[in-house]
Amino acid sequence: MYTFILVHGSWHDGRAWEGVQKHLEGAGHKTFAPTLAGHGPDADRSVTMKDVTRSLVDYIIEKDLNDFVLVAHSFAGFPISLTAEQIPDRIRRLVYFSAFIPFDGCIMMDDVAPENRQLFRDLAKQSKDNTIPVDYNFWREMLINDADGDTAQKYFEYLTPEPIQPLEDKIELKTFNTLPLPKSYLLATDDMAIAQGTEYWWHPRHSSRLGFYRFLSTPGSHELMFSNPEGLAKMIVAAGRD
Amino acid sequence: MYTFILVHGSWHDGRAWEGVQKHLEGAGHKTFAPTLAGHGPDADRSVTMKDVTRSLVDYIIEKDLNDFVLVAHSFAGFPISLTAEQIPDRIRRLVYFSAFIPFDGCIMMDDVAPENRQLFRDLAKQSKDNTIPVDYNFWREMLINDADGDTAQKYFEYLTPEPIQPLEDKIELKTFNTLPLPKSYLLATDDMAIAQGTEYWWHPRHSSRLGFYRFLSTPGSHELMFSNPEGLAKMIVAAGRD
Amino acid sequence: MYTFILVHGSWHDGRAWEGVQKHLEGAGHKTFAPTLAGHGPDADRSVTMKDVTRSLVDYIIEKDLNDFVLVAHSFAGFPISLTAEQIPDRIRRLVYFSAFIPFDGCIMMDDVAPENRQLFRDLAKQSKDNTIPVDYNFWREMLINDADGDTAQKYFEYLTPEPIQPLEDKIELKTFNTLPLPKSYLLATDDMAIAQGTEYWWHPRHSSRLGFYRFLSTPGSHELMFSNPEGLAKMIVAAGRD
Repeated sequence: MYTFILVHGSWHDGRAWEGVQKHLEGAGHKTFAPTLAGHGPDADRSVTMKDVTRSLVDYIIEKDLNDFVLVAHSFAGFPISLTAEQIPDRIRRLVYFSAFIPFDGCIMMDDVAPENRQLFRDLAKQSKDNTIPVDYNFWREMLINDADGDTAQKYFEYLTPEPIQPLEDKIELKTFNTLPLPKSYLLATDDMAIAQGTEYWWHPRHSSRLGFYRFLSTPGSHELMFSNPEGLAKMIVAAGRD
Repeated sequence: MYTFILVHGSWHDGRAWEGVQKHLEGAGHKTFAPTLAGHGPDADRSVTMKDVTRSLVDYIIEKDLNDFVLVAHSFAGFPISLTAEQIPDRIRRLVYFSAFIPFDGCIMMDDVAPENRQLFRDLAKQSKDNTIPVDYNFWREMLINDADGDTAQKYFEYLTPEPIQPLEDKIELKTFNTLPLPKSYLLATDDMAIAQGTEYWWHPRHSSRLGFYRFLSTPGSHELMFSNPEGLAKMIVAAGRD
Repeated sequence: MYTFILVHGSWHDGRAWEGVQKHLEGAGHKTFAPTLAGHGPDADRSVTMKDVTRSLVDYIIEKDLNDFVLVAHSFAGFPISLTAEQIPDRIRRLVYFSAFIPFDGCIMMDDVAPENRQLFRDLAKQSKDNTIPVDYNFWREMLINDADGDTAQKYFEYLTPEPIQPLEDKIELKTFNTLPLPKSYLLATDDMAIAQGTEYWWHPRHSSRLGFYRFLSTPGSHELMFSNPEGLAKMIVAAGRD
């Protein structure tokens, strides 16, 4: 049995993992699903990547969590990697699920395909609080493409605007590549959050940045936690176990 | 519940969808499976892409069908796209299953890999009626690679020679890209009708021509309607639903 | 019902197929799983690719086997292709499972990615008998990535050091491409024995060398015979049947 800390992606908060947590705990595992700074309803959205990361580190230290598998979805690939540099000894393994992988000096937005990069910046400028909203059509067709319509509509209500600043922050990552931490990359084969067949897709662009890592794939979309939480729970165990 | 118009590919006719129709109707959907002009046993094979398309438009208008999901297999990606320009208001969504996607000024044969292009032209020249025959070996290994031998042999009997002219016709497509029609692309991961790992493969060459679209994949070959009709029926619903 | 000769890859011997054999024989097929020269516990490891191939040919002739499906895993793609040149009339079909495909004048090591090529040569030099050992971490993360930890540990005990000489031998292959032998390539989609997303990956680099062939894929790792022997047995039938 393992302890999993599940870290949500953009537009999401800790509620994203409800279904996955139910299945993981049903199988005897312990789970935690913190909400990152700047995310969730009513959050102050004027945050940087440092703030986002600090909120995760603080959560772990406050609860004095140890020997856990730290799981990132999408955007969370950056804050969990930065967290790994700060508290490596507490972590058993890092699992990246269709996640961005940082390197020293990078900016997440450079990993977003040019057409979306421009769109996201335009949307943030038009917003009142420098955030990127997500519309239903993009959510339904590009993010949760494998779900039925009712599921897509139900979880659209969980989304909140994403602060753009963390995506624009330059990353400092000094020891990550030499940490003696096992790493896994889990890919959903129908993921279209980044267009397949382009150099920007998750695999091998992001996965290969991990160097030596365990690779696993699963059918499904970027939002597998909603369209098939049981399936994702099983794959998180397969990716996270020793 | 939805209405599906299922449009067959090369060498096929409406009978190709028998198994899929059974499963879709068993789940409460309505289905139609017209045979395109120039296709099926005893058809006059001297047809153009315009004739093929007109036969589909006429079928829809005669039956006065509306609010349907229009599904194309392979070759049918061209005639359904041309049909969408002519009667867009009748269509709820376009679904392309391992299908060719046209653009203004294109010729389908340019999307066939050079070695098959030459082979198809040679075969048509050797034929009496300007058609491309398909031999059992190509059918069994390249098209229905996932089926057992009995299934491969049974449905080989359904095949008829494909008129080459529609593959050589230059396409006029003026409004397709700006039609407010939802589109889905469904890919079979073991499809070898076009060689995988080459620039000619379906995805992203054809899929990405749709611009904004829903992507889904499924295990199986180009002839999933025969090797796993139940599985294909489910994926057609997943691709076609709102 | 078919007869399958299952030929193991590097670091393995005939025991690798125990689970697959159980399922194939349970379904009524006949199976054989020879150990190649230079492989298995206590073998003399000073062998060449010619020795390895001769041991397979001798096994088949001694047992007077005919009309069998000859299945290769990984490394065995070379010896079964060389065997096919020597005794083509005895073979019903060749099946390559995540296997190296040779061509005239090639050297297997040239198909190994540069970083592993250097590593393998360094390891062999450091060894007493010119062999490449495999460590648990590489086995667990890169080879048997889809298994649970107990399975990974259990079958690690089956591994023995791989003689490097056969990987360095230049291949003579004169009639292979024109033999009238049906061929299939079976790919495991989570196979990381060769890094995915690089030109070195199995498909289409190796598969396409077969020219006209049946392609099939399956979920799983390079070591599917241990992580899911029942699934691999089914796929070997699907790849090997007429």
